Formats: sequence, C-alpha cells, structure tokens
Amino acid sequence: MAEHKHQDELLPLQALVKEKGDLVRKLKEEGAPENDVKKALVELKAAKKVLEDKLLDLSKLEDGDEIDRAKLEDLLKQRFFYDQAFSIYGGVTGLYDFGPMGCAMKANLLNAWRNFFILEEQMLEIDTSMLTPEPVLKASGHVDRFADFMVKDVKTGECFRADHLIEAHFEKLLADKNTSLELKNEIKELLPKIDGFSKDDMASTLKKYNMKSPVSNNDLTEPHQFNLMFSTSIGPSGLIKGYLRPETAQGIFVNFKRLLEFNQGRLPFASAQIGCAFRNEISPRSGLIRVREFTMAEIEHFCDPNDKSHPKFESVKDVEMTFYSSHNQMNGLLPEVLPIGEAVKKGLVANETLGYFLARVFLFLVRVGVNKSKLRFRQHMPNEMAHYACDCWDAECKTSYGWVECVGNADRSCYDLKQHTKATGVKLVAEKKLAEPVEKEVCEVVPNKGALGKQFKHDAKLILDELASYSNEQVKKLEEDLSSQGFHNVYVEKKEFKLEKNVLDVKKYVKKFHVEEFVPSVIEPSFGIGRIMYAIFEHNFHVRENDEQRTYLSLPPLIAPYKCSVLPLSGNAEFLPFVKKLSESLTKHDVSHKVDSSSVAIGRRYARTDQIAIPFGITVDFDTINKEPHTATLRERDSMKQIRAEIDELPQIVSDLSLGKITWTEVTSKYPAFEQQETG
Amino acid sequence: MAEHKHQDELLPLQALVKEKGDLVRKLKEEGAPENDVKKALVELKAAKKVLEDKLLDLSKLEDGDEIDRAKLEDLLKQRFFYDQAFSIYGGVTGLYDFGPMGCAMKANLLNAWRNFFILEEQMLEIDTSMLTPEPVLKASGHVDRFADFMVKDVKTGECFRADHLIEAHFEKLLADKNTSLELKNEIKELLPKIDGFSKDDMASTLKKYNMKSPVSNNDLTEPHQFNLMFSTSIGPSGLIKGYLRPETAQGIFVNFKRLLEFNQGRLPFASAQIGCAFRNEISPRSGLIRVREFTMAEIEHFCDPNDKSHPKFESVKDVEMTFYSSHNQMNGLLPEVLPIGEAVKKGLVANETLGYFLARVFLFLVRVGVNKSKLRFRQHMPNEMAHYACDCWDAECKTSYGWVECVGNADRSCYDLKQHTKATGVKLVAEKKLAEPVEKEVCEVVPNKGALGKQFKHDAKLILDELASYSNEQVKKLEEDLSSQGFHNVYVEKKEFKLEKNVLDVKKYVKKFHVEEFVPSVIEPSFGIGRIMYAIFEHNFHVRENDEQRTYLSLPPLIAPYKCSVLPLSGNAEFLPFVKKLSESLTKHDVSHKVDSSSVAIGRRYARTDQIAIPFGITVDFDTINKEPHTATLRERDSMKQIRAEIDELPQIVSDLSLGKITWTEVTSKYPAFEQQETG
Repeated sequence: MAEHKHQDELLPLQALVKEKGDLVRKLKEEGAPENDVKKALVELKAAKKVLEDKLLDLSKLEDGDEIDRAKLEDLLKQRFFYDQAFSIYGGVTGLYDFGPMGCAMKANLLNAWRNFFILEEQMLEIDTSMLTPEPVLKASGHVDRFADFMVKDVKTGECFRADHLIEAHFEKLLADKNTSLELKNEIKELLPKIDGFSKDDMASTLKKYNMKSPVSNNDLTEPHQFNLMFSTSIGPSGLIKGYLRPETAQGIFVNFKRLLEFNQGRLPFASAQIGCAFRNEISPRSGLIRVREFTMAEIEHFCDPNDKSHPKFESVKDVEMTFYSSHNQMNGLLPEVLPIGEAVKKGLVANETLGYFLARVFLFLVRVGVNKSKLRFRQHMPNEMAHYACDCWDAECKTSYGWVECVGNADRSCYDLKQHTKATGVKLVAEKKLAEPVEKEVCEVVPNKGALGKQFKHDAKLILDELASYSNEQVKKLEEDLSSQGFHNVYVEKKEFKLEKNVLDVKKYVKKFHVEEFVPSVIEPSFGIGRIMYAIFEHNFHVRENDEQRTYLSLPPLIAPYKCSVLPLSGNAEFLPFVKKLSESLTKHDVSHKVDSSSVAIGRRYARTDQIAIPFGITVDFDTINKEPHTATLRERDSMKQIRAEIDELPQIVSDLSLGKITWTEVTSKYPAFEQQETG
Repeated sequence: MAEHKHQDELLPLQALVKEKGDLVRKLKEEGAPENDVKKALVELKAAKKVLEDKLLDLSKLEDGDEIDRAKLEDLLKQRFFYDQAFSIYGGVTGLYDFGPMGCAMKANLLNAWRNFFILEEQMLEIDTSMLTPEPVLKASGHVDRFADFMVKDVKTGECFRADHLIEAHFEKLLADKNTSLELKNEIKELLPKIDGFSKDDMASTLKKYNMKSPVSNNDLTEPHQFNLMFSTSIGPSGLIKGYLRPETAQGIFVNFKRLLEFNQGRLPFASAQIGCAFRNEISPRSGLIRVREFTMAEIEHFCDPNDKSHPKFESVKDVEMTFYSSHNQMNGLLPEVLPIGEAVKKGLVANETLGYFLARVFLFLVRVGVNKSKLRFRQHMPNEMAHYACDCWDAECKTSYGWVECVGNADRSCYDLKQHTKATGVKLVAEKKLAEPVEKEVCEVVPNKGALGKQFKHDAKLILDELASYSNEQVKKLEEDLSSQGFHNVYVEKKEFKLEKNVLDVKKYVKKFHVEEFVPSVIEPSFGIGRIMYAIFEHNFHVRENDEQRTYLSLPPLIAPYKCSVLPLSGNAEFLPFVKKLSESLTKHDVSHKVDSSSVAIGRRYARTDQIAIPFGITVDFDTINKEPHTATLRERDSMKQIRAEIDELPQIVSDLSLGKITWTEVTSKYPAFEQQETG
C-alpha cells in the first residue's frame, strides 16, 4: 500500500486500531465470555472512528474538497430539485418531494439503471405490492428484528431511542469532572453492554441512574419496543395486519416460484425491482440520506450455492476499485486499490458473482456522476452483518456527512427462501440435473381413508393434508413410532390426533432420482436511489472561480434533467423563428431541452441553466440571422467554452454529445471556437 | 344520430329513461322536496341501467366481441403479466404483483404517457410523498367524505357495507312472493332513501327489519363509519396521524407555490405526477379494476378561471370521439360521435382546455391499444359529481365487466387550492397584470410593539403574527371595534386577547394595483394505469382461427414487453452464431428482444412469443447458413405472414417497425414473402 502523506499523524491511530483488533481476535480464539468480546468490540469501534474522522479531516485539508453544504442546499431548493414535503402544513421530517428538476434527474437515473442492469443482463423485472401482510415480514425477520427500544417524555410525549439516551447520559457523566472515579468505572463496565440490553436491563438502568429527558428534564416512561415499519390494516375488518414494506426484496422472494417457472426452471437468473420502501425512522436527518419514504432498486441474483462463478466476470476483471476489507478495518490498515480480478483471486471478495456485481455497481455509479476518488467498497465486519447476510460489501460515497452507504451488496445465502418455505410450507427450490442418477430409499404414508374418516370425521381431511406434507424424515419417524409404541401423534391447528396402525401404513421403496433439489443462494445489490442522488449532487457541485455566487452542477448529460438549452441572445423578435426551428428539431432528435426567451441578460440565463445542470446551450445571436448559412453558438457548461456551427447540424451534435457518442473535445477540434459575434 | 339496428327493442327502454328523466327535471323545477327528487333519481338510474345492460347484450351478439375472460386470465397468469400478491401466503384480495411481462408493458405504457403528455406539453413533473399527514387530507375532504358505513358479523367479524346490505335485504324481500303488499310498499318508500341515510337511520332500519349477516345469518354490530384510506402513524411518538394518499393530486396542490415560482409566475401551466395511490376497498374484485394499491398518472392544469381557451386546441379540433352527455343519459338517448371542435362549439364540453385534454386522452388511449369502438366519454350527471368537481367526463372502456372508467377528466375549479389556503393560511394564488392599474383603499394595522410587549409579554409575538395575517376585511372590522367599543379581541391558539387603542393603530391609504391576484382553476385528467392495462388486454386478446388453444395478444409494438424474438429453427449449433449476431445488433439498435433457443418445435415457440405479444420474430433457418448474402425470415404476429431479408438489414427494419416509422404493409411490399426454405 502506498504511504499516506500524513503518516506521522495516522500511524499511532492505526496502531491503536490494530491493538484493539488483536484483542478482539485473541478473546474470540480463547472463547472468552461474550461480554468481554463485546467490550473489546466497542473499543475497536471507537478506535476505528477516531482514525476514520482523522482521515476525513485530512482529506478536507488536502483536496480542498469540503463543500459549502448550505450553498448546495440553497441551489437544490431554489431550483426545486427537491424540498421538504407538506411545507405549507409545517412539513414532516423525513419526507421529501422531488420537483421538476429532481424528478427528471431521478427518472433519468432510473432509466440508466434499467438499461445498465436489467436490459444488459436480461434480468426479470417485477413490480410488487408495497402493502405487505404481517406473516411475510414475520418470516423475513422484520417484525421481530426491525425494532428499537424507545422511551417517552411523560409530559411532552417526545420520543428517544433508549440505548442512545443511556449512552449519551453515561458519556456526559464520564466527561463530568464531578463524577466520582467509582461511578466512572461502573459506567465503563456498563457502556459496552448496552447493545445487548434487554427491556428489563434498560428499565433498571434508566431507573438506577435516574435518567430524565435530555430536552425537558421531565420523567421518562418505561422503555418499549418500537418497530421501524409503518403498520396499517388491510381490508375493512381490521384483522389483516400489514406493513409498508421496509425493502423491495421480499416481493421478489415470495414470487420466486413464478419467476423460476418464467425462466423455464433454469438457474442462475436475476430478478430486479425498482420501487418505494418505507422506514419509520425515529429521528430522520441529513436531508435525503435518512428519510422515511424512499426509492430503492434491488437485484436478487439466484444461483447454485455450490457454483458462484459468473460467465461475464472476465469482462470486468481489470476494473480497479477501492476495497476496505474487514481485515484492514480490524488492523488499522487503510483501504486499498485493486483490480476486482485480483480481489476475487486472493479471496478478499468471496466469489465471482459477488465480484462481478461489485464491479458493475462501481461502473454504474461512476457513469452516473459519482466521483471515483470518493467511492469505496467497505466490507461489513463480522459483528455488523445483518441477520440474513453471510458477506456484505457496502458501496460508500464520501460526502460532507462522512462516508455514506449508497449500495449494499450482500450475499444473503438461502436465508430468505428458507424462511418463506418454513412459514408457508411451499417449497422454494430449484432443480439441478445430476451427473449420475442416484437411488434413494423413499418412505411414503399410505392412509386408510375409510378408517380415518370413520374415526376422525371432519378432522380426517386436516390429518390427510398434514400427512401429505410430511418430509421423508417425518415419515421415518412415523414408522418408528408405529413399530415402537403402536401409534403416532399428529399435530394440526393446535389439535393432537392419535393415529394407530389401523388407519395407515408406510410403504418403502427405492426410487431413482435424476435431479436434485436445492435452495438457491441469493446475491443482492441494493441501491438507495435518494442517497446516490445526494452523493452525485455533492460530487458535482461547484462554484465558479472569481464569483462566489455562481454555483453550478456538473451532472453527466446522461442524468441531467435537460440536455440542452436554447436561448435567444435578447428579446429581439427576429431570433424567435430560429429558436422555434431549433426546438422542433431537438424534439425530433429526442433531446430534452429548455427554451429560455425571458428578457433577462444572457449571462444570467447561462447561470440559471448551469444551476439546473444543463450541459449544452445553443444561443441564437445576430450572426445567426445576418449571415448565411445560418449558424448558432454551442456552449459547454463545465468549461463555458463555445463553438459555432450551422443550425442544421447542431441538434445532431447535441444528441451525439448527450449520448456520449462524441466528446466535447472532439467537437471543439472540429468546429471553430466562438469568441465574439461579427455582426449585431 | 344513426338508427340503431335493434331500435325496436331499444325504443321502449329509451322512452322509459326519458320519462324518468323528465320527472326528475320537473320535480327540480318545482322545487319539490329533496326526498322526492332522490326517489325519482333512483328510478332514473334503474331505467338507465336496464338500457345500458340491453345495449351491452346486443353488442355481444352483434360484434361477437364477447371474450373468454377465463382464457385471457389464464394467459396473463401463465405468462406472468400479473398475478395475485402473496399467493404463497394465501394471497390478499385487491393486491397484485406485476411479473416481467406486465412490468415491461407497464414501464412502456408509462414512458409513452410521459412522452405524449409531459414532454410534448412541457409539463412540470413532480414526485411527492405517499405518506400524507392528516391535516392535508382533512382539507381536501378525504378524511370526512372518503368513507362508508359498515356493519360487522358479531361472531365472524365479516364486514359489509351497510347500505349495500340493506338494499340487498330489501330487494330480496321485494322478490319474495310471501312478502305482504303492505311491506312491499313500505320498502319501496324506503329504498330510494338509503343513499342519504344517517348512521341512526341505518341502525334503526337494520334493527326494525331484523337484518342478519347474509353469509352466516349471525347478528350484526351497529353501523360505523369506515374511511377508505389506509391509516398509519408517522414518527415514533404515534402523534402524527397519517394516511397513504388516495390520489396523487394533493401532492401537486400542496406544491403549487413552488411550481408557480419554478414557472416564473406564469399561468397557465400543467404539473403531472406518476405514482402509487391506495384505497382500502371493502370488497375488491374484478381483477385489476378494483384494487387496493394502484398506479395513477395525473395532470393538474392550472389556468385563469376566466380564460379557459387553449392555444393548441386548433390542432385537435377534428378528432372524432364518442360523447355520452349528461343530457343524453337523462333523455334515454344514445352516445353520439362528434369532432371535439364541434362538441366545444355547441357547449357540450364546457371549454377548450377541457376539450383539448379529452381529445389528447382519446388519442393516447387509441395509440396504446384501446379499441376506439370500445371507448366513450361519459359526462357525470349532476348528482354523481365528486365534491370537488364542476364538470367531469370519464373516458370509459367497454370490457367484459361492462363500461369501466379508465380516465377521469374533471374541472376541479379552484376547490383544492382554496381548501389548502383555508387550512394553512398560505395564499395559493397567481397574479394577472391588469389592463389598467386600479386604485383601492388599503387598511393596515400599525401595532405599538413596545406597548404590546409590555402588556402581553411572551404572547406579544403570537398577537403580532395573527394581526399580520389579517385580511383587509378583518382590519376594517378591527377599526370598527376600536371606534365603537374601544377594544378589539384577538383569538390565537384558543386564547383571547383584548387589545385596546393604546397598543395599535389603523392606517388607511389608497394604493395603486397593477396586478390582480386570483385562485387558479384546475383541470385534471386522472389516469388509472391498471384499468387501462386491463382494457388493453381485453381489446387485444384473440384466439387463432381453427385453434382454440392458440391465444395471443395483439399489443401495439409501442407497449409490447419485447419488440422482437430471435429463434433458431432448431437446436442445430450452426444457427447460433447468427442468433448471437442478430441479438447484438438488435441491442445496438435499442430493440428489446428475447432469444428462444430452446429445443421446442418452432411452431410452439411462435405460439409462445405470440402469447407475450412479441410483434416481430426473426427466424434463423437453413437458408440463412447455406446461402449468401445471409438472410433470415421476419414474421409479423397478427397476420403470421413472413418476409425474407438480409440479416444485416433486419435490425433496422424491426427498429423502424417498432417505432412506427414504417408499416408492415410497406415491408411486405418491399421484401419477398417467405413461404418455405429452399435448402435445409
């Protein structure tokens, strides 16, 4: 790894991380008590954070890449890229509305995504329900695990996350000179345990240390669980409890059977979904980064767990990306740049399929305007992995809020499909042809329907259905029961039925199997569209040299809301026929554009188009009307340079530029630069 | 109007409608009691329904346009256009998932919509929050009016709409021979009143006639109001009550100020939104037609209420459409075909802007595959208009479920903007330059801040804010109060403050106004995307002659999920390089396509591509490989005719066909028809 410019400042911090990381490893190896490991992990996290913060500070100093967030936000609001929802009603935190510019950019971004992922990879796109009945999210783990403990101010009703409140209270005490050494030690003991606190632990801690609302100093309620999903009830009876989906992925999993069938039973295949998801954040903040309603684009790639190779991996193997592995994070080492081919070869990235997607995600993000020097792939450390994931790399973008997760890339293994099978009894499996047919002993229940009916009446059907769903193992157990004790108990709908030998029999035979069933593994890249948009805004926000007030956005033409502006130099009526002609021709060339024929000075109109990121601008001036063949100027946003070309040619040039078929440099070498009109 | 073929059967039904219509009019003119008018309206509705049903029956007989819905649904399910959501969990009624084919078709339809409306008309597209706080929907009228009365089965909890249940019970009694004449007359009296029943009326009727659950015959609960919006709470406190939006329109209205500003203060302009909306239907049914979660595309066109002319009306004036006016409905007359220009001229359609949109809606629907002979525009009768509308024309499509509303076109006047202003105090107005400046007397409150602060302390700010929001009329009232009684009472946040002369003064002066403020009128075309898709499916579903099993969909290329298939004639490996080359070239031409190289017979593969509506298919056969220049066949789905062309040319031909740049007839006249291979 290359030496860092500020290594003197960094080395001690890195050493501290390594020390803490070593301790965690040592404790784990020794099989130390869980609590000790947790404590060491908390210290590791803290040391990592100090290192991370230092690096962010240094990069601001070095690259001068600190942006004036207030100025950017001002532009985004003024030009209505997005703004707080329901402002005239006082607004609701965490909800945003996209205006015409944000909406066009978002539509372009999603189109680019669809082309780059769905069409190029022939993924199966679906569009599923947001309203989701509880059992689905119970199975996925969200009902039980997507929750935090909360306390409320008894008077104002203000809510706080219990663990955050306790931590903050303890940290305040630790920082307080008047706190006794004894108490400080006690607190140090407790701090690392908070993560694993039960409801009762929280309650007793809050009580013991007499914690109050940090805002009003009022008393607090007992802690209670708060699930981050928005709940509602579906249908008039109020009996079907439902939630707004917290991710789009589950909609794909519950459709797995249909998708596999649509794909004619073949694996691997990927399904994708673009759609809204919802999280009832306790305290939304950081603009578009932490919101309550957001657009996601998710891919679920289903494959054989024993074969995660990828046929197109070869095509991306030389893509160089920044990896921040779990190992480097534990050892105080910095992120490293590697070609993805090497990363997979040396086992840093677990398999080709995951590696292929990491590279594709990288290429996509850079294409839509993320600055690659502010993009890294950070591996989750073992303790931060979600309950469903077995490996996870976050594509993180550096912003003024620090490194922000924009795309999660998880190997979810077969967790979700298994969970839904468990909940529904529906087998979510694929079949694989065996190289050699295999013979296996099969046990089958042969019920005596007459006898069953006679004995169990209406319940006979229930029993038959249950027996029909028995696995080979269950049938074996049944047979054992019958031979050892003479009966077998069946449990259905909370009732127990005692079946004796007279009502059923077990048949055993050898069967030849040509295919093997298996539960596919799932690799999931999950894109947060709002966060990506925000990162793009920050990475493309600039202020013109020598003019603090002239801010602009250098969005790539691919996602810019409009591709071109058409401006008459002034209010002179003679310009208008040319403006109209150009506009019509641009429409014919499918170039989205904006005509600004307001009477404002041309310089101010340029500034306005720069603020809404229009990459190219055609200006009709006096030379256009006075000279033949008719020409106009074409201006590029970032360089502000202009060329002059015939107006019949310009729409095609802009179309080619927008689609990336030619570069601006090529255009400037082909057409004369424009400095000043000759007539007028 | 042309004579109808079956006029003998229709005339008496039409006469009955007219008779009932005349009665309604007469009663209204005479100022008859509301109840009598209602009764007559119920009879008018019934007569209309009989006529309508007769017409539908006749058209099924005549045009043979009755479709086999079960067969269509089978195709849509099998090819995964859409299917019930969460089926593996037993499903939830009213929720559907779109599979790869439905999703691609929906994306194409929405893209076509965006191009046809937003881009061509330069509308301001926005994308707003679905979660909506209660006050917004209180102001819009949805909290109070978007509700029905419900009763529940006391044992099973099953829910029924109270009015429907009562009606059904009465109708059953009327049909029962054992019901006494006396009771029948009593019921006939009551039936027309049910629409206007209060909660108490419902309760007493249910009790008096001893109504039970029609399913279980169990007792019923008291009726209670059931709002059709899904409710949830936003944020952790549970204090912000919210709903999932029942329409996307409100998101545009609450952003009106920002949009007007974005449009530099100019009117008219239109804003549009494509997004999801939710209605907790009591009993969802009819597939995609009545669902609980659906995609809408809405346009809100803001204009001067005194000038609803439209600059582009001229361009559509000759479009011929079917109008079913309120007048014709009341008089038993049939719908009539007219050019929209004439319809506006004779006052049938209220103004040019509404007329322009009706024509554009018509052109769009026909373009995306709605059969124009199964499309009509039906005007709402005065008694069925929504609370916000002052005129409304529904674009209705004829389906096997009858005539279904697919696009509502309402003149919402200035209802919504006024309501939001009333609720928030924020002025939602536009300005119009006056021909001549106008002088008006202005009253202004001049508070004595020092004195106010001294007397009211913390409350002084509240009072000042309140006074600042006073209208001219309120200031006049204040002045009157001061001079008549020496003080004026201000009410803020439920507190009353008595202001005496020492704390404020009133200044009066004459001011010259150059502009006039006004609340814009809104004209709204509102598209139900799922319903339109369903109508398109029905209008394009066919069965091949002589083969009942071969069903297919004749979707226009514009919205077909794929534009082209590429099929090797058989599993012969020599075909594959040509297939690959064609596929790559089609991708380069942006033609979405599907390769089917499975070993299934070519005829069955054609049938498969026909079912997913692929309009064009290229087949690589032995002549392709054996003869030079290399050629392949191109097949058109609807005619099943084939031509033969060079494979280098085919991608461009398909691209031109898909974009409508050439027609299939032109292609057949240019290239040789293909009947049979020469080699192979």
